[in-house]
Amino acid sequence: MAKKTKQFRPKARLPKGLRDLRAEDVAARREMLATIMAVYESYGFDPLETSALEYADALGKFLPDADRPNEGVFSFQDDDDQWLSLRYDLTAPLARMVAENYEALPKPYRRYQTGQVWRNEKPGPGRFREFTQCDADTVGSPEMAADAELCAMVSDALEAVGIARGDYVVRVNNRKILDGVLETIGVAAGDDGATQRLTVLRAIDKLDRLGPDGVKLLLGAGRKDESGDYTKGAGLSDDQADTVLAFVGAGSDNRGKVVSTLRELVGGSEVGLAGVAELEEIGTLLDAIGYGADRIAFDPAVVRGLGYYTGPVFEAELTFEVLDDNDQPIRFGSIGGGGRYDDLVSRFKGTPIPATGVSIGVDRLLSALQAIGRGKGRVLMPPVVVLPLDKERKADYQRMVWQLRAAGIRAEMYLGGAGMKSQLKYADRRGAPIAVIQGSDEFEKGEITLKDLVLGSKLSEEIEDNTTWREDQPAQLSVPDGNLVQAVKDMLARPHMKV
Amino acid sequence: MAKKTKQFRPKARLPKGLRDLRAEDVAARREMLATIMAVYESYGFDPLETSALEYADALGKFLPDADRPNEGVFSFQDDDDQWLSLRYDLTAPLARMVAENYEALPKPYRRYQTGQVWRNEKPGPGRFREFTQCDADTVGSPEMAADAELCAMVSDALEAVGIARGDYVVRVNNRKILDGVLETIGVAAGDDGATQRLTVLRAIDKLDRLGPDGVKLLLGAGRKDESGDYTKGAGLSDDQADTVLAFVGAGSDNRGKVVSTLRELVGGSEVGLAGVAELEEIGTLLDAIGYGADRIAFDPAVVRGLGYYTGPVFEAELTFEVLDDNDQPIRFGSIGGGGRYDDLVSRFKGTPIPATGVSIGVDRLLSALQAIGRGKGRVLMPPVVVLPLDKERKADYQRMVWQLRAAGIRAEMYLGGAGMKSQLKYADRRGAPIAVIQGSDEFEKGEITLKDLVLGSKLSEEIEDNTTWREDQPAQLSVPDGNLVQAVKDMLARPHMKV
Repeated sequence: MAKKTKQFRPKARLPKGLRDLRAEDVAARREMLATIMAVYESYGFDPLETSALEYADALGKFLPDADRPNEGVFSFQDDDDQWLSLRYDLTAPLARMVAENYEALPKPYRRYQTGQVWRNEKPGPGRFREFTQCDADTVGSPEMAADAELCAMVSDALEAVGIARGDYVVRVNNRKILDGVLETIGVAAGDDGATQRLTVLRAIDKLDRLGPDGVKLLLGAGRKDESGDYTKGAGLSDDQADTVLAFVGAGSDNRGKVVSTLRELVGGSEVGLAGVAELEEIGTLLDAIGYGADRIAFDPAVVRGLGYYTGPVFEAELTFEVLDDNDQPIRFGSIGGGGRYDDLVSRFKGTPIPATGVSIGVDRLLSALQAIGRGKGRVLMPPVVVLPLDKERKADYQRMVWQLRAAGIRAEMYLGGAGMKSQLKYADRRGAPIAVIQGSDEFEKGEITLKDLVLGSKLSEEIEDNTTWREDQPAQLSVPDGNLVQAVKDMLARPHMKV
Repeated sequence: MAKKTKQFRPKARLPKGLRDLRAEDVAARREMLATIMAVYESYGFDPLETSALEYADALGKFLPDADRPNEGVFSFQDDDDQWLSLRYDLTAPLARMVAENYEALPKPYRRYQTGQVWRNEKPGPGRFREFTQCDADTVGSPEMAADAELCAMVSDALEAVGIARGDYVVRVNNRKILDGVLETIGVAAGDDGATQRLTVLRAIDKLDRLGPDGVKLLLGAGRKDESGDYTKGAGLSDDQADTVLAFVGAGSDNRGKVVSTLRELVGGSEVGLAGVAELEEIGTLLDAIGYGADRIAFDPAVVRGLGYYTGPVFEAELTFEVLDDNDQPIRFGSIGGGGRYDDLVSRFKGTPIPATGVSIGVDRLLSALQAIGRGKGRVLMPPVVVLPLDKERKADYQRMVWQLRAAGIRAEMYLGGAGMKSQLKYADRRGAPIAVIQGSDEFEKGEITLKDLVLGSKLSEEIEDNTTWREDQPAQLSVPDGNLVQAVKDMLARPHMKV
């Protein structure tokens, strides 16, 4: 084999911003995703899986960093010199897929997809370059009912996975209202003001992090951050910036009141009034099905950083706090969002194809669930471990494993070369409930010893407290080898075995 | 917004060798994977998920095309100029993960992983550049029991997903035996003969496609293919090549007989005899748990193309034929395989860490299942569709959907702008069992009309045959609007609604 020709010894390390998920996390994520997907399906969404790779031009550049070319996306040239990119979200691939298969799809087309996405960004704490999203989108409907049901569905999904009502809120806004406000204060409409509007948008999107004063700097001349880097602002006057900030602060837990305030702020702007009417319609639809502002609130501070949104935008936020390892309160904040992107499919087709969608950030939601002691996942029972003490009798030990497995008991044989003590240590590390032991003495007597490792560890913890010991449940017992399966079943049925 | 500044219209197309999976395929694959993973778990394997991206040097190059540098793998430079690659299998990332976290893992470590892998290869019919694997590996055990249980587990997994016993076979061989045969006929051992041995290996791996005569050319001077391309051979003499072909042809449905034949062929070669002894031990272990040669056969023609195998190699093959659209018989052939790769983790650590694993090609197995009418997946009930005939009463229709959904019935409102006829066409395209209709007349009467679309389409197919009509199950009926949920439930319970 070629193996020995290589002297190079690579370092075993994962690139920054990437990570491995171990058994408990995989199981917990799988369970959480299954719950979310079941909610999506109940709303009529069908699953779709697209490829991780797309032509770069088909994906387009709509990330918040899109103004820095070639940033944000992992790309490379194919052998025919075309640029391929790893998808940075699940929306752009959907737009491509719908445009490519438009005739064959039912319209409107409701689909959901879950999968990894990749961002070529600077990683940081809790900020990864590969993460998982779970999206639902309706393509081909201009109806506000499509947006309203997405908000209700996210609310349902969060409650289904274990977030209590009151511990989250879905905040809704409409991009057209901001456009209207900007029109009213004299920012140019159409292409001329496009860059300025985008700068305003991204300034507002930083409200959480910078507060109103920081945002005001970004709306005006610009802002220098702690590191000394200067970000150019949108160039609004003080008065203009104040109007924008008044708009941003118009949120309230009374949806009707938010609508009235916004209607005043947009003045006579046609696009602004259209946005307010859309928001109002979403409110009416949500009222009809009983989703109040405790679940879905209107908040003009929500703008979403992505460039492609054209109407309603939503953000799902966790509102509770947990204490970190240093007893400092932390909030998980946004765990998803979305909005209407009427131009994303149209950019392929040339004809208007309205669409709206929502995305849940799976990793962050899972962290939040785990922080509040939920999200434990389907419990994967640790295996019963058979210890092959006699190296000559491997086939016999393997047969025991098979008998257990045939009876539906997760079981494995220790496959290392170590002695009894190390084998028991292995069983312990695996979290095994029972070790199955048959040394040569026991073999001659036709017996097998079962060690109750759960009780064993309880006993060694509570060495002083003899009350936990029960005669009928010894930590170790010998059974005739024909009784192996039944004896293991009986031991697994002991009350302390329950997870 | 920036949207209108872009005039460029991209073409909506997926790069070659990639594809979208629609609802039925997603559901079928999910179901099949869940079944396989449950089998893996019952054997004590724990789930792991690693990142799609790895450092190129950590993955290494072990693909059959590894002799062509930079072929086979999608790679690009990170912003610190280090090369990242998309994983081309799930084994190399496992080796990295184990080497990186060696102390923290139970040893031996049994893990399974399912996920996409990417190959930068020329795509062809049934040959994709992104596909899904479902792997199980045991790291840290030199025991043949680890290899034997993998073979048994693949056999169990195939039967669990619906492949009948007799319709598949797991073929097992050992790389050391080939090394022994080559040593016996005078091919240099160690690094000196490494390239020649690899060429022999890859020649044998083409037996299925080229037959013994083609393989003999590749074992000798070389072979010109149909396109005129010349592949240099391993340079063996005629006699040497014949011995190799005798080895390759030594398969039989009697495992003991194969072992004896091979023992003769390796002569006095130490490595060869070690390989035969390993094969024999696997046979003994399989006999002990009753897995006969009808499930797991010994076949020296199995060598596996990957360069990193060092001992036992296995290949899972489907043996049945199905007819294609032109009534031509097709075989699915190999749907997975694996083997022992004792040096893959060691290349990081410098110390020997034996490992063995198996991989199932999920996409190909799913195609095979679908071809024999299995693999239909968990049935995703098509939604009941509520038709919003009166545009002023959207909120009412939405409330109906909510009532149905609250009762556990998958339901959706048509969200387009079209009239009754198009709405019914949409319901039909969705495969909806029932359309819920309330026009203004019905609204005034406080009634809702339910259309049984399954019966409706049956009736229109069997227009001549009035016997299918039953008075108590009309294709359309009106109910008081307070009875919506119960009436839909009753209609869904009609016998013809069963999928």
